[in-house]
Amino acid sequence: MDAFNPTIQLTDAERIDRLRLIRSDNVGPRTFRSLLHHCGSARAALQRLPEFARRGGAARAGHITSEDEARAELSAGQRLGVSLKVPGEAGYPPRLGTLDDAPPLLGVRGATETLMRPMIAIVGSRNASAAGLKFAGQLAHALAESGFVVVSGLARGIDQAAHRASLEKGTVAVLAGGHDKIYPREHEDLLASIIVAKGAAISEMPLGHEPRARDFPRRNRLISGSALGVVVVEAAQRSGSLITARMAAEQGREVFAVPGSPLDPRAAGTNDLIKQGATLVTDASDIIQAVGPILERPLTSALREDDGEAPAPDPDAGERERIVSLLGPAPVLIDDLIRLSGTSPAIVRTVLLELELAGRLDRHRGGMVSLSQLA
Amino acid sequence: MDAFNPTIQLTDAERIDRLRLIRSDNVGPRTFRSLLHHCGSARAALQRLPEFARRGGAARAGHITSEDEARAELSAGQRLGVSLKVPGEAGYPPRLGTLDDAPPLLGVRGATETLMRPMIAIVGSRNASAAGLKFAGQLAHALAESGFVVVSGLARGIDQAAHRASLEKGTVAVLAGGHDKIYPREHEDLLASIIVAKGAAISEMPLGHEPRARDFPRRNRLISGSALGVVVVEAAQRSGSLITARMAAEQGREVFAVPGSPLDPRAAGTNDLIKQGATLVTDASDIIQAVGPILERPLTSALREDDGEAPAPDPDAGERERIVSLLGPAPVLIDDLIRLSGTSPAIVRTVLLELELAGRLDRHRGGMVSLSQLA
Repeated sequence: MDAFNPTIQLTDAERIDRLRLIRSDNVGPRTFRSLLHHCGSARAALQRLPEFARRGGAARAGHITSEDEARAELSAGQRLGVSLKVPGEAGYPPRLGTLDDAPPLLGVRGATETLMRPMIAIVGSRNASAAGLKFAGQLAHALAESGFVVVSGLARGIDQAAHRASLEKGTVAVLAGGHDKIYPREHEDLLASIIVAKGAAISEMPLGHEPRARDFPRRNRLISGSALGVVVVEAAQRSGSLITARMAAEQGREVFAVPGSPLDPRAAGTNDLIKQGATLVTDASDIIQAVGPILERPLTSALREDDGEAPAPDPDAGERERIVSLLGPAPVLIDDLIRLSGTSPAIVRTVLLELELAGRLDRHRGGMVSLSQLA
Repeated sequence: MDAFNPTIQLTDAERIDRLRLIRSDNVGPRTFRSLLHHCGSARAALQRLPEFARRGGAARAGHITSEDEARAELSAGQRLGVSLKVPGEAGYPPRLGTLDDAPPLLGVRGATETLMRPMIAIVGSRNASAAGLKFAGQLAHALAESGFVVVSGLARGIDQAAHRASLEKGTVAVLAGGHDKIYPREHEDLLASIIVAKGAAISEMPLGHEPRARDFPRRNRLISGSALGVVVVEAAQRSGSLITARMAAEQGREVFAVPGSPLDPRAAGTNDLIKQGATLVTDASDIIQAVGPILERPLTSALREDDGEAPAPDPDAGERERIVSLLGPAPVLIDDLIRLSGTSPAIVRTVLLELELAGRLDRHRGGMVSLSQLA
C-alpha cells in the first residue's frame, strides 16, 4: 500500500512561527502558502504581515498571533494528547498534504501509524435508513479487514455506523471544531473508543473552537482529501455528503455512491452522483478494485511543485490600482485579471495576497475572486 | 419522432409463400433470409427446400407447409383479428424489422398506428416489490404521456404494472405463444383491455402454439428489438429480464436500469447492469433524453443492406465435405470456418444453410455454429 516516508524535520521555532502565521487574522491555508512562497519563511512573513495588509487597504491592523499565544496553544494541546503536524511529517495523512489548501498545521490525536495508512472515506445522511446504516457497517468492516483505514466525520447516522464497524482496525474521525469541542456532544464516548482502539482524530481548528455551520463544508475537504476516495452511502439532494463528494471530485479523489430506490428520497443524492459518473458500489470489492491502481502510483504533492517558482517582486502603486479597479462584488477569473491588467501573474498574485490580508478579498471555486462585501 | 413510410406491397400469393416457408421444418428467421437471398423468392426457396436438406444430409424429409395449411392459418387469424405482416409493412414495428433475425411474418392484433410509433420496453421481475411495481407504473405513465408506446411481455409483476399504467395511450404486448395461447391465462382480460384501448399484441408464433420455457428468451428479442431501449425495473441476478437487457445491447438498443439498495436481492441484477454501463434511471426524463438523438437518426435496415449481395453458387461435394469435417459439437466461429476451409464466405454460408435445413446445425451467439447433437 502507500509507501510514504516522512520527509520534514521542523525546529520548534519554525513550528511556533508557522502556528503564529496560520492563526493570524485573514490567513487561510492558501494565503499561508503564498506568504511562505513570497517571503521565504514563516518568520519573514510574520514580519511583513502589517505592510501587506496596509498596502491592501486594511481599515485597521489585524491581529497577529504572538509567540506566547502559540506556545499556549501547543501546551494546551499536549495536555489533551494533541500535537500539531505539518505536511510531510509522520502523523499528517500523506494524501491530505498534497492538497493546495492542505492545513499548514493539523491537530492530531491518536495513533500516528493509522494516519499514515491508505484511507477510504465513508459519509452519508445523519437520518439514515436501517438498510443504509447496515450497509455502511458492512462496507466499513470489509474495507477495514482489507487494510484500509475508514475516515469519516463522527456525525450521527452513516458516519457513526462506519466508525463503529471499523473500530477494531483503526478508524479516523475528522472534526469540524477544536479537539476539545466534539460535535455532536454524545459522540465523545465514540471518539474515546476510537482513540483507545489505535484510531485517531484530526482537526485544523484551534482548541476551544466551537464548530459553526460553515465549518462543516470546510472540514469535509479534509475527509475527502485524506482519502483515496469517498463513498456516499445515503444522501438526500442538497445534503452535506454531496459537498464532500464534490470536493473529492475537485481534489481528484475517487467518488463512490451506493444506489437506492428512486422512490427513496435518501437515495436521490447517491443516484444523482452515479448519473454524474460516480462508481456504483454494492460491495467493498467495487472500491478496492477501483483504488488499486491509484495505490501503485507515487504521491504527488501540490506543495512541492509550486516551490520551484521564483519569488515575486513587489507591485508598484499603478499596478495595484489597475488590478483593484478590475475587481468588484462579482467573482472574476484570476486569469482574466492577469490578461486585463496587463501585468505579470506574480504581480497579480501579490496584489490579491495584500487584499486578502487586508480582509478585502473573497476567493471562490474555480480560481475566481471578488472584493469582500464585509469590508 | 420516427418518420416511417411503409415501403412494401405484398401480393396475396407472395404472403402465402412466405408463410409456408417460415412455417416449414428447420426454417428460422435467419435461414428464411438466407433462402430468400439464395433463391430469389419464397416460391423458389420452397421448391428447393428438399434438395438443400438432402445435400445437408437430412435423415428424412422435413415437413414443408402446404398452401392449404398456410391459408388455414391466415383465415383462423382473421377470425381473431390477427393479420400477418412482413418487415416494412404498416403494422410491423419499424425497428423490429431492422433486426437480422426479424420475424419474416409477424402476427399482429390491434391498432396498426400504435405499432408504428416509437416504443420503450419496460421489463422486470414477476415477484416485484411494492416499490418496484409503483415505480414501473410511474415510469410507464410518464413515457406514455410523452408520446412513447410502452412495450412489455404481459407477465405478472413489472410487465403488468407497465401495461396498466400506459393503457390509455396505447401499449404493446409481445407474446411468447400464439395469439390464442395467452400466458399467463389470467392476463387474458388485461390483453383484452389493451386491444380495446388502441394498443396491440404481436407474436411470431403460429396460432395454437402453447408457449414453452425456451420460447420466452426468443420472445424477449422482439421486446427489445421493437423498442428504442429497454428499461429493467427490478431483476434478481440470472433473471429473464437480464436476458432481454443483453439482447437489447447486442441489438444496439439502449439499456436502462433502475437502481436499488445493495441489500435488496431484487436490485442485484439492475445494479449490475449499471456497473456494466446501463443508464441509471430515476425518472422518465433520463430515458427521454437518452433516446432523443436516436429518434432523429434515420432507421437502417439490416435486411436492405444484405440485399445487395450477389447470389451464391452451389458448393461442390469436396467443399461441402471439407466444411462439415471442420464442424463438431463445440461451437466454432463462422469466420474460422471460412479461413480454415479455404472456401469463399458464400460457399460456407450455403453449406451451413443446407445443414440447417437438414436439422443438423445449431447457431450460437457471436456468429458461432456447431453440429446439432439431436441429429
